[in-house]
Amino acid sequence: MQFTKVENNKNSAILKISAKDQKGLVAAVTQFIAKYEGNIIDLEQHVDDIDQEFFMRVEWCLDQFKLSTTELESLFAEKIGQPFSMDWSINYSTVIPKMAIFVSKMSHCLLDILSRYQSGELRVDIPIIISNHQDLESIAKILKIEFVYLPITRENKQQQEAKQLALLKDKKIDFIVLARYMQILSEDFTAQYPNRVINIHHSFLPAFPGAKPYHSAHARGVKLIGATSHFVTVDLDEGPIITQEVARVAHTDSIDDLVRKGRDLEKITLARAIWHYVNHKILVWKNRTIVFR
Amino acid sequence: MQFTKVENNKNSAILKISAKDQKGLVAAVTQFIAKYEGNIIDLEQHVDDIDQEFFMRVEWCLDQFKLSTTELESLFAEKIGQPFSMDWSINYSTVIPKMAIFVSKMSHCLLDILSRYQSGELRVDIPIIISNHQDLESIAKILKIEFVYLPITRENKQQQEAKQLALLKDKKIDFIVLARYMQILSEDFTAQYPNRVINIHHSFLPAFPGAKPYHSAHARGVKLIGATSHFVTVDLDEGPIITQEVARVAHTDSIDDLVRKGRDLEKITLARAIWHYVNHKILVWKNRTIVFR
Amino acid sequence: MQFTKVENNKNSAILKISAKDQKGLVAAVTQFIAKYEGNIIDLEQHVDDIDQEFFMRVEWCLDQFKLSTTELESLFAEKIGQPFSMDWSINYSTVIPKMAIFVSKMSHCLLDILSRYQSGELRVDIPIIISNHQDLESIAKILKIEFVYLPITRENKQQQEAKQLALLKDKKIDFIVLARYMQILSEDFTAQYPNRVINIHHSFLPAFPGAKPYHSAHARGVKLIGATSHFVTVDLDEGPIITQEVARVAHTDSIDDLVRKGRDLEKITLARAIWHYVNHKILVWKNRTIVFR
Amino acid sequence: MQFTKVENNKNSAILKISAKDQKGLVAAVTQFIAKYEGNIIDLEQHVDDIDQEFFMRVEWCLDQFKLSTTELESLFAEKIGQPFSMDWSINYSTVIPKMAIFVSKMSHCLLDILSRYQSGELRVDIPIIISNHQDLESIAKILKIEFVYLPITRENKQQQEAKQLALLKDKKIDFIVLARYMQILSEDFTAQYPNRVINIHHSFLPAFPGAKPYHSAHARGVKLIGATSHFVTVDLDEGPIITQEVARVAHTDSIDDLVRKGRDLEKITLARAIWHYVNHKILVWKNRTIVFR
Repeated sequence: MQFTKVENNKNSAILKISAKDQKGLVAAVTQFIAKYEGNIIDLEQHVDDIDQEFFMRVEWCLDQFKLSTTELESLFAEKIGQPFSMDWSINYSTVIPKMAIFVSKMSHCLLDILSRYQSGELRVDIPIIISNHQDLESIAKILKIEFVYLPITRENKQQQEAKQLALLKDKKIDFIVLARYMQILSEDFTAQYPNRVINIHHSFLPAFPGAKPYHSAHARGVKLIGATSHFVTVDLDEGPIITQEVARVAHTDSIDDLVRKGRDLEKITLARAIWHYVNHKILVWKNRTIVFR
Repeated sequence: MQFTKVENNKNSAILKISAKDQKGLVAAVTQFIAKYEGNIIDLEQHVDDIDQEFFMRVEWCLDQFKLSTTELESLFAEKIGQPFSMDWSINYSTVIPKMAIFVSKMSHCLLDILSRYQSGELRVDIPIIISNHQDLESIAKILKIEFVYLPITRENKQQQEAKQLALLKDKKIDFIVLARYMQILSEDFTAQYPNRVINIHHSFLPAFPGAKPYHSAHARGVKLIGATSHFVTVDLDEGPIITQEVARVAHTDSIDDLVRKGRDLEKITLARAIWHYVNHKILVWKNRTIVFR
Repeated sequence: MQFTKVENNKNSAILKISAKDQKGLVAAVTQFIAKYEGNIIDLEQHVDDIDQEFFMRVEWCLDQFKLSTTELESLFAEKIGQPFSMDWSINYSTVIPKMAIFVSKMSHCLLDILSRYQSGELRVDIPIIISNHQDLESIAKILKIEFVYLPITRENKQQQEAKQLALLKDKKIDFIVLARYMQILSEDFTAQYPNRVINIHHSFLPAFPGAKPYHSAHARGVKLIGATSHFVTVDLDEGPIITQEVARVAHTDSIDDLVRKGRDLEKITLARAIWHYVNHKILVWKNRTIVFR
Repeated sequence: MQFTKVENNKNSAILKISAKDQKGLVAAVTQFIAKYEGNIIDLEQHVDDIDQEFFMRVEWCLDQFKLSTTELESLFAEKIGQPFSMDWSINYSTVIPKMAIFVSKMSHCLLDILSRYQSGELRVDIPIIISNHQDLESIAKILKIEFVYLPITRENKQQQEAKQLALLKDKKIDFIVLARYMQILSEDFTAQYPNRVINIHHSFLPAFPGAKPYHSAHARGVKLIGATSHFVTVDLDEGPIITQEVARVAHTDSIDDLVRKGRDLEKITLARAIWHYVNHKILVWKNRTIVFR
């Protein structure tokens, strides 16, 4: 099954930086890019007024750029990164990231992601879908994506996670999407993919963490329900928030109605988080995200 | 491919009324229902303050109701409908409506509808998908839904529409969804399905009717884009609006970004309109809709 | 100072009911209204599917109604209210409710309410503004509203509340609005105005209850901030929610920016809650609100 | 009347640029700032992918900056502005802009602006309020702002506008806010304040331009109403859009309800546009705005 592919002919580098604020940072970086004939397409820079921390994302066209990626990275490290004590990373628009999807039984987030993948909206490779249930295997088959069924019990959790991690390494997975995967990842697992596991939680966090948020929302009588996509950390539902959406509800909405309306929030919110991740628009600082435009 | 089916054990009748306002309307209707042991679950009634037109939707449980559907309809007509000169209709929660989908090349609305259909969120039968292109045939095949390819040219339009209409009659289609079908239906076609063809237009109407609304929105520099689902009438993009959604955009959004953000609006907005239609929550009055909760 | 007054010539009664669900409730009520020549303008009825509790709001025109308000209330009690074991109340569109406003130092909610009061949008009388600070006295003076300064300390709280209650009784206050009043009302006070004290809390509850929600929101890195208007109960920030609003925030927003954006949410959300209250559109059930359209 | 003043101790320069895109622009500008010891707080840069036009806003702290404002502007013009053929402007956070407000009879936008002015949220001076009606004079008096009553007829329009322009010159007004001013400014007037007159139109443009948009919205049966703040140009309601907001409406909303809900949209939308203007976050390009974060 193959639909209209969105072409993306952009050949650009994306540099993300966080550093202690100091004079001349932007000038140093942009001069470096200009020196080697890079033309900047987009630059966003912000200084946090509490921490005096500097954040920047700059994207430039590589068409006439004079450095190879290897030269770029080693020269940048030497001339800019180290002198200014930066945390930095460079990504390239032509490199397609590899994404693994974890699911349980619910299909709405998975189908939505795959629909975007098929249309070319999400420029990723999806070498594997891992699940603790077999319900969604047929969907993976249609798209000829490998589907690995690894049921989880209290007893086998550690060894099944070891298998998951081996599969992820083997497939050279860059990041993981939990598309309503109803299992908590262990501390060990989480530590191996810091800020690289994206979850969707079905409430506007920090309200209603944990299980059954729609039931809690109904009981509390809130007038808005929400969904939150965030990076997974060892503290459940406490990781850096990437994006959040809400929808209006009323007394006429039963719990089933909240679940139904929530599914739309969940799939849209998760898809936006993935899109921002794949387009290298997210930095993490102190359990918060900087999400560039 | 078969996923979790949402069960709906509700056995109810839904009565929708519009009439010139007059005293005693609600009392007459609700007494009629009470007389035959119907228990009202939900009632919404409103009088338009300009036209003095009365609108009402009432849903009651049929479990202990003393009338068959035939008796109900003939008795209601005789005792209430005619004396009060009402326009009325009765639907039943256990009757699954038959929906035809018309598509062209874009898959996002179709996939979203089918995902809701498969999960049981949308309680419809889909006997047929009709398209002027072959691109989406493989999707229909997966779900074993008949896909009929009827390419349209200026020359063959009339005869292809005749074929479409014959197919719709043959499949006993109740209503039609244009899921980004890039053809204008003829006046003859439209007249045969009054307020039964749901379209999705990719702007917040009445702004940007016609072709290429995202291009127009970009040129005008609007800060919000939208999508509008409406019933199709002979006047293009002028039919009764069912629901509308918007999303924020900025100068950093290219036309491609508008198209991408717009796809989410389109699929969610169209799905909501279909949901309201299928749950018998829409009345049409003077080119406007009454959408009950 | 007197601006354009919105005229409201409507002469209607509004009946709100909650009761255990049973057959014939709507019929009984609407027949009663029809019998005495009341013409129903608006009716909304809903049965909670978990508690099987019946909720209804019906508004009818009194122009040709055959009962005086006294007759109406005693007859309704006898014929409908008692037989069906209803909780019910009747209000009249021509009776202007008396509202007290409690404030501290911040002016935005107060000014917004007074602006709506002056324009006639909010059909209330405001016999008194009570404050624990003197900052906003000049505003009250302009509108010739009595302003009573009652500073609160840990020591004098009980006796100042006694003074507040005496003033409220004296002015025959129907309901109280806490327009960013930075004091917690005692259990005794709250008990005297059950579901008649409306507060505005500057977060989307249940997230960020208590003090300094914008600081907490900034620290947590949420992407939406909110405001919640609710009835005050003895449990701080736990009362029935009337309405909630949110606004999008980003990493570029400082705490001051959140406070600034939040002010708009607070004043709009509080104003909506007051409007619904004044128009008799709110019922409370089990710490949740039913807010009719 | 004087309330809590928000302190703003920031001492910064804000440079806005538009230019044909070319390599080295960002580097040149940021090097210039760094050379004279300016520390950049915020930078946003974007290249329009259709026009290849470069837009940038950069704000830097002046505390240790080595140039006076005069030196800055002349040096920048010589070294950067002219060589790169830029359109550029520099503003300073310590310079308070002078704003004139034009009103007719409706008070909600005016009161909202004045509330923000009083609280220090809007850092402007308001030397004058001009109106074609006397209704709102008492509000101006409270704040001791000069109120000039200039009634407009078809006959005297030209000469009254001459008086208005003389007053604006005399007061050294930087920009004008039409806070529901129900008069169309002449071409001559508009030409003297290009992109310096901010209007609020009570619809989501380009839908419902011209008079009585709420009536048109009601007649069309839209499910969302909106408000648009834009710069005034000679083409009525066609100027560059600054910001837009919408609110959901339903069939139960009368025209009066739309007007009431619309007032909130209008005042909030207009206030946001003013805030962005005053904080030098808006550039205009080809009848569109670039609104920096």
